Amino acid sequence: MNPVRVGLLGLGTVGGGTANVLSRNQEEIARRAGRGIVISHAAARETSFPDVDTSGMEIGTDAFAVVDQPEVDIIVELIGGYEPARELVLRAIANGKHVVTANKALIAKHGNEIFAAAREKGVMVAFEAAVAGGIPIIKALREGLAANRIEWAAGIINGTGNFILTEMRDKGRDFADVLAEAQRLGYAEADPTFDVEGIDAAHKLTIIASIAFGIPLQFEKAYTEGIGHITREDVAFAEELGYRIKHLGVTRRTEKGVELRVHPTLIPGRRLIANVDGVMNAVLVKGDAVGPTLYYGAGAGREPTASAVVADLVDVTRTLTTDPGNRVPHLAFQPDALSDLPVLPMEEVETACYLRMQVADRPGVMADVTRILGDEGISIEALLQKEPVGGASDVSVIMLTHRVVEGRMNESIKRIEALDTVTGQVTRIRMETLDSN
Amino acid sequence: MNPVRVGLLGLGTVGGGTANVLSRNQEEIARRAGRGIVISHAAARETSFPDVDTSGMEIGTDAFAVVDQPEVDIIVELIGGYEPARELVLRAIANGKHVVTANKALIAKHGNEIFAAAREKGVMVAFEAAVAGGIPIIKALREGLAANRIEWAAGIINGTGNFILTEMRDKGRDFADVLAEAQRLGYAEADPTFDVEGIDAAHKLTIIASIAFGIPLQFEKAYTEGIGHITREDVAFAEELGYRIKHLGVTRRTEKGVELRVHPTLIPGRRLIANVDGVMNAVLVKGDAVGPTLYYGAGAGREPTASAVVADLVDVTRTLTTDPGNRVPHLAFQPDALSDLPVLPMEEVETACYLRMQVADRPGVMADVTRILGDEGISIEALLQKEPVGGASDVSVIMLTHRVVEGRMNESIKRIEALDTVTGQVTRIRMETLDSN
Repeated sequence: MNPVRVGLLGLGTVGGGTANVLSRNQEEIARRAGRGIVISHAAARETSFPDVDTSGMEIGTDAFAVVDQPEVDIIVELIGGYEPARELVLRAIANGKHVVTANKALIAKHGNEIFAAAREKGVMVAFEAAVAGGIPIIKALREGLAANRIEWAAGIINGTGNFILTEMRDKGRDFADVLAEAQRLGYAEADPTFDVEGIDAAHKLTIIASIAFGIPLQFEKAYTEGIGHITREDVAFAEELGYRIKHLGVTRRTEKGVELRVHPTLIPGRRLIANVDGVMNAVLVKGDAVGPTLYYGAGAGREPTASAVVADLVDVTRTLTTDPGNRVPHLAFQPDALSDLPVLPMEEVETACYLRMQVADRPGVMADVTRILGDEGISIEALLQKEPVGGASDVSVIMLTHRVVEGRMNESIKRIEALDTVTGQVTRIRMETLDSN
Repeated sequence: MNPVRVGLLGLGTVGGGTANVLSRNQEEIARRAGRGIVISHAAARETSFPDVDTSGMEIGTDAFAVVDQPEVDIIVELIGGYEPARELVLRAIANGKHVVTANKALIAKHGNEIFAAAREKGVMVAFEAAVAGGIPIIKALREGLAANRIEWAAGIINGTGNFILTEMRDKGRDFADVLAEAQRLGYAEADPTFDVEGIDAAHKLTIIASIAFGIPLQFEKAYTEGIGHITREDVAFAEELGYRIKHLGVTRRTEKGVELRVHPTLIPGRRLIANVDGVMNAVLVKGDAVGPTLYYGAGAGREPTASAVVADLVDVTRTLTTDPGNRVPHLAFQPDALSDLPVLPMEEVETACYLRMQVADRPGVMADVTRILGDEGISIEALLQKEPVGGASDVSVIMLTHRVVEGRMNESIKRIEALDTVTGQVTRIRMETLDSN
């Protein structure tokens, strides 16, 4: 059979990796797919491509020309960002071409529009590489766990953030210090906002939530909190209490709606996912039949991401002749069977919390703080008071609370911060047990 | 669209779970698959089915009658064992029906014959539930990692064995003692041979190896060693040296052939898979592009296994109308593209080893032992000598060796055991670093 012809948009890190994997493993891939997969056309800004096997490719600078190429069957979009990626993908679809993309921002924000266009033209849009790099988590959720009512998913889905938190813990270093190193090592962008503020993770979590619960993509409703305010003291106190701090994306189905939130999170140190360190990613998924399952691997990088792109190419190749109605739906559920379960506002989400505050070292202070929590119906599960360091008049107080609705905790924190015996802001880190509930 | 009609063979633990999951999650499953999946006929030895939703099923005792039922589209075989499972599956195929099975023994031993028959009739045989229960590892290997040249896979794929080793470690208990408890709890069969001798794991590993490397199923060539000779002292010594003992299935592609072996294994305690405890399973897979990835979850049990059976039912339902040539091949690789890379005889496998021996507490003994190892070109990486306990004349000596070919180690052990200063047998436990190599 003739090889499938791919048009590649972008020959940067992931594009170059995709070209190399397709070339190096061409025999292995054809043995699986039953036919070859070749990149016939590519568009790139660069003009030289060191360490990339570009043999057999017609390379130009005009991505639209590749999208319009009649001989191309599948477009692989690896440009990133919203535009012109969106325009290119929609034009590829309009041209009747299938699309494979690693672009989490594009799918999280414009996925509903893109999938609707793809349905109309009967083409596939595959995006395994958009979430957790090389880990086949989209496939696991969409197909492997198809028997299950998914209850929740929680993931370490940003390698930069996990690298920073791992270094802070292992070496007792400060956030800013580790971030600077991550930037030097190339793990973090010059502008680290997307990574450390949780925006990148929220893109991925939005996609996970949609395919887990069968709801439309609603990136704009995700709650996002970064890790910049986590101190090395927080990391050490958490450890002392038997927890690790991870930057988690959490999505959970409740009766009132779907939780969709990215924030630093205390999780029990004995959980497998608590031991996922450095730049590695992992996603924990709880299904009603299967129980908890975990998927671990490299969440970014040249060849791990290319691994997911090429797996999608094989999948698309296999179903080229399949009746579109029998293909796996983009968001796992048939488009006319999506649920209108709303995304739950963060104020209504219920979690246990870690609170750290600086209080004056004198009698009555703790009584004030605990009275406020008691007023709001918040019970304290553990309390840690640290001796003042070298003649300081303030002491650090750490509390772990029982589960409480976010709105009440916000109110309590406001009132605690207003006490004149409490200095500065209260640090609040949400907690998840990630057990079978 | 009309629902797909399933004929279920076996209404025991997994059969009952499959019926319940299909019934409880029927809406969720139909939202995904685009059509309903119902069990129309079932065959069972029992006559009453407490806690199983059998509504809508015609239940009889004759499995062949279900296989011959003209209205049934897919046969789910959950009887287990070689016969009559083989005969039933072959007859279902001959009748043009697709097959889903959880039967690892059947696939590992008769898979080549079954897949050949299925190809001839253009039907599917799906077996996700045969390996690692609810973990979608077959799908991950066969589709999710399709871009990769798989280098090796290593798995904790028998929950009973892992439960026993976890208890030995956590509570310092003896093998026999924990096994008896596991039997009481229902984790281990009355005849525990399949689990603790590694036969069950070898069935699963055989399947993993075939879909990882594209080789025919060759269960009879798997090397299998149980955990019955592991003492609590071994577990404790391993811990002291920074390792855990796990009953691993390991398959690796080398230039000379494919390693296929199940045995107790020392692995570094900091590896994620070393922390997979109790009855849980996990499979670590190394691909050349993706690097290491890990898949974790419940490897057995009523609903976890049903989760995999039903996922296969959804997959089969989706590809009912697909041209057989475009379906995912049974063993991941096109049947005419399987490799004849041989399975490497155990004598030629190279691993590092943990050795424990009882030696007389007098001068010159260690010189004899280390001279033998030196003669065979085996270098020692670590050595631990334990003081004699309460007036005993023997001491325990533990050595970690560098990598060495199995045949040489066998020879060395034979010579060491022949020394009259060494009491009893040498315990040898192979080691794996499970790093990126």
